[in-house]
Amino acid sequence: MKSSNTISKKAGLPPGTLVHIGRHITDKIKVSIIDYDAANLSETVCKSTEECFLFKETDTVSWINVDGLHDNETIASIGNHFELHPLLLEEVLNTLHRPKVEEFDNYLFLTLKLLAINKDSNSVVSEQISLVLGRGWVISFQEHESAVFNTLLQRLREIKSNIRKKGADYLFYLLIDSVVDDYFFVTEHISEVIEDLEEKVLHTPDNKSLQEIQHLKKQLINLRKAVTPLREAVATLDRDATILIEEGTTRYLRDVYEHIIHINESIDLLFDTLASIMDLYLSGVSNKTNQVMKVLTIIATIFMPMTFIAGIYGMNFDYMPELHWKYGYFGVWGIMIIAFAIMVIYLKRKRWL
Amino acid sequence: MKSSNTISKKAGLPPGTLVHIGRHITDKIKVSIIDYDAANLSETVCKSTEECFLFKETDTVSWINVDGLHDNETIASIGNHFELHPLLLEEVLNTLHRPKVEEFDNYLFLTLKLLAINKDSNSVVSEQISLVLGRGWVISFQEHESAVFNTLLQRLREIKSNIRKKGADYLFYLLIDSVVDDYFFVTEHISEVIEDLEEKVLHTPDNKSLQEIQHLKKQLINLRKAVTPLREAVATLDRDATILIEEGTTRYLRDVYEHIIHINESIDLLFDTLASIMDLYLSGVSNKTNQVMKVLTIIATIFMPMTFIAGIYGMNFDYMPELHWKYGYFGVWGIMIIAFAIMVIYLKRKRWL
Amino acid sequence: MKSSNTISKKAGLPPGTLVHIGRHITDKIKVSIIDYDAANLSETVCKSTEECFLFKETDTVSWINVDGLHDNETIASIGNHFELHPLLLEEVLNTLHRPKVEEFDNYLFLTLKLLAINKDSNSVVSEQISLVLGRGWVISFQEHESAVFNTLLQRLREIKSNIRKKGADYLFYLLIDSVVDDYFFVTEHISEVIEDLEEKVLHTPDNKSLQEIQHLKKQLINLRKAVTPLREAVATLDRDATILIEEGTTRYLRDVYEHIIHINESIDLLFDTLASIMDLYLSGVSNKTNQVMKVLTIIATIFMPMTFIAGIYGMNFDYMPELHWKYGYFGVWGIMIIAFAIMVIYLKRKRWL
Amino acid sequence: MKSSNTISKKAGLPPGTLVHIGRHITDKIKVSIIDYDAANLSETVCKSTEECFLFKETDTVSWINVDGLHDNETIASIGNHFELHPLLLEEVLNTLHRPKVEEFDNYLFLTLKLLAINKDSNSVVSEQISLVLGRGWVISFQEHESAVFNTLLQRLREIKSNIRKKGADYLFYLLIDSVVDDYFFVTEHISEVIEDLEEKVLHTPDNKSLQEIQHLKKQLINLRKAVTPLREAVATLDRDATILIEEGTTRYLRDVYEHIIHINESIDLLFDTLASIMDLYLSGVSNKTNQVMKVLTIIATIFMPMTFIAGIYGMNFDYMPELHWKYGYFGVWGIMIIAFAIMVIYLKRKRWL
Amino acid sequence: MKSSNTISKKAGLPPGTLVHIGRHITDKIKVSIIDYDAANLSETVCKSTEECFLFKETDTVSWINVDGLHDNETIASIGNHFELHPLLLEEVLNTLHRPKVEEFDNYLFLTLKLLAINKDSNSVVSEQISLVLGRGWVISFQEHESAVFNTLLQRLREIKSNIRKKGADYLFYLLIDSVVDDYFFVTEHISEVIEDLEEKVLHTPDNKSLQEIQHLKKQLINLRKAVTPLREAVATLDRDATILIEEGTTRYLRDVYEHIIHINESIDLLFDTLASIMDLYLSGVSNKTNQVMKVLTIIATIFMPMTFIAGIYGMNFDYMPELHWKYGYFGVWGIMIIAFAIMVIYLKRKRWL
Repeated sequence: MKSSNTISKKAGLPPGTLVHIGRHITDKIKVSIIDYDAANLSETVCKSTEECFLFKETDTVSWINVDGLHDNETIASIGNHFELHPLLLEEVLNTLHRPKVEEFDNYLFLTLKLLAINKDSNSVVSEQISLVLGRGWVISFQEHESAVFNTLLQRLREIKSNIRKKGADYLFYLLIDSVVDDYFFVTEHISEVIEDLEEKVLHTPDNKSLQEIQHLKKQLINLRKAVTPLREAVATLDRDATILIEEGTTRYLRDVYEHIIHINESIDLLFDTLASIMDLYLSGVSNKTNQVMKVLTIIATIFMPMTFIAGIYGMNFDYMPELHWKYGYFGVWGIMIIAFAIMVIYLKRKRWL
Repeated sequence: MKSSNTISKKAGLPPGTLVHIGRHITDKIKVSIIDYDAANLSETVCKSTEECFLFKETDTVSWINVDGLHDNETIASIGNHFELHPLLLEEVLNTLHRPKVEEFDNYLFLTLKLLAINKDSNSVVSEQISLVLGRGWVISFQEHESAVFNTLLQRLREIKSNIRKKGADYLFYLLIDSVVDDYFFVTEHISEVIEDLEEKVLHTPDNKSLQEIQHLKKQLINLRKAVTPLREAVATLDRDATILIEEGTTRYLRDVYEHIIHINESIDLLFDTLASIMDLYLSGVSNKTNQVMKVLTIIATIFMPMTFIAGIYGMNFDYMPELHWKYGYFGVWGIMIIAFAIMVIYLKRKRWL
Repeated sequence: MKSSNTISKKAGLPPGTLVHIGRHITDKIKVSIIDYDAANLSETVCKSTEECFLFKETDTVSWINVDGLHDNETIASIGNHFELHPLLLEEVLNTLHRPKVEEFDNYLFLTLKLLAINKDSNSVVSEQISLVLGRGWVISFQEHESAVFNTLLQRLREIKSNIRKKGADYLFYLLIDSVVDDYFFVTEHISEVIEDLEEKVLHTPDNKSLQEIQHLKKQLINLRKAVTPLREAVATLDRDATILIEEGTTRYLRDVYEHIIHINESIDLLFDTLASIMDLYLSGVSNKTNQVMKVLTIIATIFMPMTFIAGIYGMNFDYMPELHWKYGYFGVWGIMIIAFAIMVIYLKRKRWL
Repeated sequence: MKSSNTISKKAGLPPGTLVHIGRHITDKIKVSIIDYDAANLSETVCKSTEECFLFKETDTVSWINVDGLHDNETIASIGNHFELHPLLLEEVLNTLHRPKVEEFDNYLFLTLKLLAINKDSNSVVSEQISLVLGRGWVISFQEHESAVFNTLLQRLREIKSNIRKKGADYLFYLLIDSVVDDYFFVTEHISEVIEDLEEKVLHTPDNKSLQEIQHLKKQLINLRKAVTPLREAVATLDRDATILIEEGTTRYLRDVYEHIIHINESIDLLFDTLASIMDLYLSGVSNKTNQVMKVLTIIATIFMPMTFIAGIYGMNFDYMPELHWKYGYFGVWGIMIIAFAIMVIYLKRKRWL
Repeated sequence: MKSSNTISKKAGLPPGTLVHIGRHITDKIKVSIIDYDAANLSETVCKSTEECFLFKETDTVSWINVDGLHDNETIASIGNHFELHPLLLEEVLNTLHRPKVEEFDNYLFLTLKLLAINKDSNSVVSEQISLVLGRGWVISFQEHESAVFNTLLQRLREIKSNIRKKGADYLFYLLIDSVVDDYFFVTEHISEVIEDLEEKVLHTPDNKSLQEIQHLKKQLINLRKAVTPLREAVATLDRDATILIEEGTTRYLRDVYEHIIHINESIDLLFDTLASIMDLYLSGVSNKTNQVMKVLTIIATIFMPMTFIAGIYGMNFDYMPELHWKYGYFGVWGIMIIAFAIMVIYLKRKRWL
């Protein structure tokens, strides 16, 4: 049912009520923990949520990754342990929310969208990722298990890795960066699809192109809905100093910010290109109408006068001298050929032939 | 009479004159009071307005709800008792006002619109709700009795309810939230209507679609007129600290603010979609003209040359050798068939057939 | 002469030169004075300007109303007496100026437009009203005598009137409010005209509608030219505290400000509606072209093939067996009827019939 | 040669190199000086630039006016004497620069455009005027001698003139005001041309109108290029207090600022009007196509059926009973007249006749 | 391969990884050093990067110019020596980055685009130039050897050169100025191409014009992508005081800023012009359709009635009195000529002939 995924499902419930708004994807919530410092790294998949809570107070950096959002109880118990605000948990579960950052007393909350291309339908599919940065820990919530953090994980496992020497804020940055990097793939894919479409519309504008333009426009709108609020959110992170993020990390966040601006500009550009293609399409259609009209006019211009002449000599008057001339018939043919020639010359001069 | 509901009815009267501008809906003003603290809750429907005034000075939270705005005297006596500014009362009664917030010395005034969909006409209908927050009391004015606060009332009646532990500012927030939650239903309904329309226009663009586009545009404009000023108003509430609203409640107001932004973005999106549908419609019409022209041209291209040939041999010249050939008639048929074939091949190559 | 009313008439003259730019409407300047406090009120029509000057230093509130701007000498002598800046007087006389507020050392200057509808031409006509607020006095300059302040005057004459207890700043507010109230009538009138036009364009788009759209657009532009700068001006009044306006009056000015914003939004809405009507019109025209084309195509599709068949049997070949068949003629009719039927079915399936 | 006047001519040269970019208009640079105070005024046309330099240190106000910019040496020697920054001189000579104001340590620099209408081509022609305001002196640079400051000069020569009592900053204001006053003439002229065009397009839209729209659009763009940056520049003068401009003069500058805003709004309005005319033109063209189509359809609708009937009875079948009826011929005429009548009624009901 | 040059190539790699994103142009990186003060100037082409590092600590100004970016090792060793931030080097190598300025503790980083016109394809080609300004040194990174700095070099080599007396910040300014100067050539070239196109579209709008409009639009978008962010960057340089740039140089930077604004305005103007040309094109196409329709209608209007008349007298009724009149045939001709004349007059009055 369409409407079951909409925000209105929640309307009327008390604020702070945990309701998962979104698709139910994973069968079971999976909570895994990576705990590391420069020297050591341990990876655990928690069986009970209580297991996770041992890591909160350690000096090491703890990364708690939660795959799946449909089990309110688990989410709530994590929330309780880390003293997360009820509204924050609500927003983690409401996957239709727009990206935003919010600062709380002891932690920082950021939600953003993971984007990918469904190659079959050329559609942008989006999932929500929520990140909470505390002192020495980061929690990431995903709608289901995905590969987006795999590269990061591999780098983390290397003992010489630069990441291991840095704090939770640097991990927080890397998580954002991993998600944003995927946006480049998405915009590039759409950009290629649009280029192909432009080529096609330029040569054979048909009704299907129009539907494709509409479809791509919707994909771009979805893209923009994910990227524009994120830009504001990361700008806020950059601008408002918080003790949770060290100054050295701020420069890296600014780099992410530049990437998002770059993507945003690409999206604007693609919108402009789509508008140009729409212009091309419309002007292509009116060119085609023009062509059709020309053919009709040429045919009519040539045959109407000649048919008229033939009509004249098909009349049955008793006294029509031309009918009895010896070369009358051939003369008429001559007149017709001359009329034809005049019409052709006229049309040539109008550049219609 | 149309103009009797317009603001100009008031033009020229002294400022502070109480004139009810809007539809007269309820027969009798109904004033009801909910007075509660964590332990107790009392509900009263006042017979005389004086009854209500007992609750103002208590330590408990008092919620005075007024249904109906057509009885100026009652409104004025409430206004006097709570020392409300004459301009405030004027705005409560003028239901054509745009949403806004205004801070007075001892209370906070907010007016906003309750929106609903009239399913018969697919129209957005709006009513004005005005809220006044004082120390320990909230007054809500509605144009007529509605179900919008029912869920809230039920939660309030539960003794364990979280709301009972909090102050009048939290009640104030909940009232706003109840109204804003309904906006999601409205935008979603319109969104579904627009999706259906898009599907229809893509396949059979007709004049009725155009009227429907215009109608939906007007609904969106009405929606925006209710939502955009409210966004500013709630942003003001959030930004300008006031002693009437505790810091903890501010975060909840920000949540309402995010909801309004979300709705606002949906409305912008729906406007864009309507513009796209208009494009689809126009391009559909010009495609249809193109189709019609093609049929005409095909018919003319095929029959004009053949009719000409027939015309030739309908001439009555004495000396027309072909007429006397034995197979002249069949030869002419042959020529016509060849002409027909050439035309068909030509049209096929133009991809018109 | 058209250009005699334009600003360029003044170009090149020294700044501060008093030149009346605008229509000459009244025969004689009329200067009248209302002087009042809570207890007394006196009304005088001055014969000489010197008479007026007695009222400046009194403790009562003096309202000097000047009807007519064509007598530079009178204006100049008032200016001298009240020590008005030469540039201010220049702006009072230049009725093509845009609304604005300017604060001087001892007084406040505001010019705004009085708008009305000329019902014959459905045009917005505007006149300039300039207000100067000093300590205990207000001067109002009008292009000619009008009824705009009559209601205010009547209220002022009542001894119990609330106005009489307040200062010159409240009178200043009431004068602005009287003018702004008229804007509602103007926008509502235009709004009704536009609604009628929309209805008309939807059913019978013709060339006259286009001219009406253009005309209404110009009226809206004129309206906006009066309202938008006034919004800024009143916002300035509200924002920049001045000792001439008491704090209590500021709230009333904010109310006027809200009215102006309301009007401004209505104007924006009407612009949007006009744009929609233009779309309706254009799409109506292309629908009509489409209709015309369809009729042409139907006629041609039906008659061209049949005319061709008739042409065939009008040929004069010696040997045409069908001509001699007994039922040849009726057979041809049969073929024609079949051709006709096929065409009708084809057109029905295309939904053109 | 077109490109010789373009900025790229300077590209690559060291900054501060004096190159005159613009048309070479005057044969000889003319430097004239007006030196005045309340009592005395002397006018000198300098033969050598050294002559001018005597006036710099006097207590009187000195106005050095330079007509012609093609003699780099003279310009440079003036620059040296008044200690003008090399970049300033560069901008004086580069007449393609946009208007701007720049404050230096001891003087203020403003460049703006003198606009006029070339009545033959209805084009806006612009020249650059640069003004430097120092303590007690003003330098004005013009591309060639013009009449723009003549009125000002005449007023200056009168001994009772108000100007003579004021300082160099007031002269500076008057110079700006003289230039800006001319803008009113230009916008009014274009406004009249546009009104005429609108009238014309409404009645006979032809291809030439389109070219005129394009031409006027370019003129407006040129106008805006001169006015918009000037608005910013004068706003800067008004906002940023500088010791070179006395407080009394600031109010006059604000007046100029209001004029520029007024002109700017007129330009925006003219752009809107041009866009409306373009709409009128396009809709006029499609109306004309519609008209043409209607005529074609009417002709075809009337004559095709009748021609078909005539074709029927032109067939040569042996057995066609109608041919032998006595009133067959007249009967056919009757049928044709009935067909004609039906068609006319049909077309009337479609409102095409 | 197209995608090998895209940013997504980098996605997923750790931040600070040096990957050259862009075309591989030069075979070998060339590092050259110009070291100068007022008295001396030495030019060196480094064989090993270590050679370069001698110049860092000297009192003279050192300009290290790096041509080619494909040798990560060289870049990295320069980066290490000058203690450049890893993110900075990353951005030097990523030639798809947008222009920006970034301030680090001891140096200032600016990247901008070198633009040129490929005359064959009328395309804008861009290369990235990165500049690092430290105390007494400037490093410039180019994608390959170019002539852009040659003029600057020549001026530098002159012993009397003004540049030699100034610091590294002035050199930094001159490098930016050299690059920006080239933008004028690019915009002027495109401007000329657009003017030619406008002329062409006005007279013979064809499908190729449409493609050219699209092509030019893309070039302008590319141009804007280079210029707009640079404007912000240089504005930042101007606004945020930094000890690396002396106050005297700031004025020169403001001059560059004005140039960039000028270019930006030209680009906006060219966009507007392209939009106008598109309008011209579309209206040209619909004018052409109109023309074609007119010809068709004229032909049909003239010949259909006359063919009908001929058809009448081609009927074979036994009793058709006109057929036997002596001058019947000539009478019919007369009627036809009259019909022809009426049609011609009708069309003349409609101004179609």
